[in-house]
Amino acid sequence: MRIRVEVKYLENVEDPEALSIQRNLSLLGYGNINRVKTYRVYEFETSLDEHDSFEEINTISEKILTNPVIQEYKIEKISD
Amino acid sequence: MRIRVEVKYLENVEDPEALSIQRNLSLLGYGNINRVKTYRVYEFETSLDEHDSFEEINTISEKILTNPVIQEYKIEKISD
Repeated sequence: MRIRVEVKYLENVEDPEALSIQRNLSLLGYGNINRVKTYRVYEFETSLDEHDSFEEINTISEKILTNPVIQEYKIEKISD
Repeated sequence: MRIRVEVKYLENVEDPEALSIQRNLSLLGYGNINRVKTYRVYEFETSLDEHDSFEEINTISEKILTNPVIQEYKIEKISD
């Protein structure tokens, strides 16, 4: 089963990479970019069924991929 | 207009972060993960029309966000 996890910064938290990209784009003359956001996406292929895959990937996302103080994650199934 | 750019490693190129996650998950007892891939996603909000937005984001993706020797990117419109 293939599962996708999207990790992003919480709405009220600064995204340092996005801010740096936006600043540099502006310096390089790309002044029409009003906002930049970044996400990190992880795609997992497991040998478990749907229920166990979601349980395991959920634990991994919470414990390893995300810092819950500043980030949130979203899990979705891509294919069986 | 909101545009999303997904940057990932080319199929035949090693993804060092994915390999390291997979190795660590295995050490932590998550042995049912057969494969990990990672992507970086950038979301841009521009004050241009669709044609100019795609042109500008395309240039930015090619010149700044992607290393074409090892990565590829995909651009899509999210909303007006």
